[in-house]
Amino acid sequence: MSKWYQQNQENYPGVIMSSRVRLARNLRFYPFPNRLTKENAIELIEKFKGKFNNVTIDDNIYTITNMDEVKSIDKVAMMEEHLVSPNFINSLLPSAIITSEDDSKSIMINEEDHLRIQAMTYGADLAKVFAEANKLDDYIEECFDYAYNNEFGYLTSCPTNVGTGLRASYMIHVPALEASGQLRIILDAIGKFGIIFRGMYGESSEPVGSVFQVSNQVTMGFSEQEIIDNLNSVTMQVVDQELKVREKLLREKPLEFEDSIYRSYGLLKYARVLSSKEAMTLLSDIKLGMEIGVLKTDSYNSINIFEIMTSIQPANLQKIENRALDVIERDIARAHYVRQMMPSIKKN
Amino acid sequence: MSKWYQQNQENYPGVIMSSRVRLARNLRFYPFPNRLTKENAIELIEKFKGKFNNVTIDDNIYTITNMDEVKSIDKVAMMEEHLVSPNFINSLLPSAIITSEDDSKSIMINEEDHLRIQAMTYGADLAKVFAEANKLDDYIEECFDYAYNNEFGYLTSCPTNVGTGLRASYMIHVPALEASGQLRIILDAIGKFGIIFRGMYGESSEPVGSVFQVSNQVTMGFSEQEIIDNLNSVTMQVVDQELKVREKLLREKPLEFEDSIYRSYGLLKYARVLSSKEAMTLLSDIKLGMEIGVLKTDSYNSINIFEIMTSIQPANLQKIENRALDVIERDIARAHYVRQMMPSIKKN
Repeated sequence: MSKWYQQNQENYPGVIMSSRVRLARNLRFYPFPNRLTKENAIELIEKFKGKFNNVTIDDNIYTITNMDEVKSIDKVAMMEEHLVSPNFINSLLPSAIITSEDDSKSIMINEEDHLRIQAMTYGADLAKVFAEANKLDDYIEECFDYAYNNEFGYLTSCPTNVGTGLRASYMIHVPALEASGQLRIILDAIGKFGIIFRGMYGESSEPVGSVFQVSNQVTMGFSEQEIIDNLNSVTMQVVDQELKVREKLLREKPLEFEDSIYRSYGLLKYARVLSSKEAMTLLSDIKLGMEIGVLKTDSYNSINIFEIMTSIQPANLQKIENRALDVIERDIARAHYVRQMMPSIKKN
Repeated sequence: MSKWYQQNQENYPGVIMSSRVRLARNLRFYPFPNRLTKENAIELIEKFKGKFNNVTIDDNIYTITNMDEVKSIDKVAMMEEHLVSPNFINSLLPSAIITSEDDSKSIMINEEDHLRIQAMTYGADLAKVFAEANKLDDYIEECFDYAYNNEFGYLTSCPTNVGTGLRASYMIHVPALEASGQLRIILDAIGKFGIIFRGMYGESSEPVGSVFQVSNQVTMGFSEQEIIDNLNSVTMQVVDQELKVREKLLREKPLEFEDSIYRSYGLLKYARVLSSKEAMTLLSDIKLGMEIGVLKTDSYNSINIFEIMTSIQPANLQKIENRALDVIERDIARAHYVRQMMPSIKKN
């Protein structure tokens, strides 16, 4: 089955590329993972196996996989797909992952908390992914007792997650804000609303391809709906600004704009060696170009930039090539893959 | 009729793009052009009109045109095609040009000397153009008396042309020598053999696209054949070095080489704005790429880089577009023209 980000090419996402919700949960009667023994960790996974092996919840079939059965390359690929966190794949504690068929819904077991329930979707739809995560949360709550405190809410390993345990986030593509230098100003402003900006791969990742995650910083003192509404409101303002700057660029420097986008297309279509960073930058350019109507692709060609951006990451690329690749081999394979994926351009 | 450089696409020229011979001649009984009166200049042109208007010499039909009847843009275009010199089109003295149908043979009247007889051809064939220039020279000598001195030979305005009045030159494309930094060393070496290197457009022109003119500096003290043999011998060594450096680059850095050539192709094929200098550099790259077999074009596509390099010069470009263009309009028109001319690449 296709992954969630490989579908939906008709609903081409614009500035907001994807939406994600995750809920941090812990079970009562077990120490938090940082104090959990290996035996307890295995016991906890076994309990979930009973509840999640080939179980259908809300029309989704779930399977559970022990992470020690997953090959290293596949673990990294899962991280590149935002299915698991970097911490999770590097953890020494026995851990497992529960996934829906398209990976859009998942639960990490024994990450920083016992459970990290996650739902993701293409484009802007936090309401949908919040509802999906809630259904998984409800199902688990029917089976197990959560660590919950009437005053604080859900208890978590890290105090920043206590309360709702909710982190809602959007992956946004803001090339015009970045190019115009306005992104810095916006970052400062939205910090005051408890919203944080991070690179595509979270906390310590360098931003590439003008793709960022925006998410709530605070999980306590507000209801889930308030957290989501706040993120929505701030993000929509950022989107609005991005669109305004795009219009301004297009109005004031149409030729430079068009030229730079077509040059990026030409390089993606013909380069023989592409680093991940350069490829992300060029893909960002043509995504922008297609959205503002400057890069005119043949109508029968569709292109899923989100899928390409994921597929050119090191582990996914090696999975596509079905062999281990060193850095230069990856740069060659990346250029080859990207060439194949480029849509045709209307003759002019 | 096509120009000489627009033909012959099958005999694709490699390092040596074209060959040229010019003979400086003056008529006896007239002051040299720097002392020539306007009336004398006109009289001299009229004498040639009688001998060259729709005259067939050696199977070529010649016509004569007064330069004051030529539009400014066409004068510059003629210069870009190496048919006339910059000095010639800026001269205030009445002047005229005699041309064969394909412009490969020509005579400037009242340039620095009364006559500058010229023959050009695609690729490497100095013997052919020397013979052609000689036939014109012989025809003129049957009609008029040349300023000739038994001790010095042909007399000319500038002492550097006295003697044979011969300048033989090759236009060569040496991107590998230039990129490797070896060109400087070679320039120093060949100067000792009386050979000079200049940019594509002669004396004061900046070298672009790794295209250079090599020609003899000395015209006296050697026979015509010795001058040509010397230029041939030196040029063939330069060509040999260029080919060796190309092989070395291809052997030692095949990937970087291929990548940079395909990137240049991608930019030529998709850029919307191209300065003359950038276009020349990119065209130089793909010329090299095709010659060493790295850039694989579809076999039914042929491309005449020499023609493209000429057509993207400012005046020729405006003639193609059939309207006056400012700098930025030219850069747009140049990018458009180049896009159309790019051959398809074999699928891979």
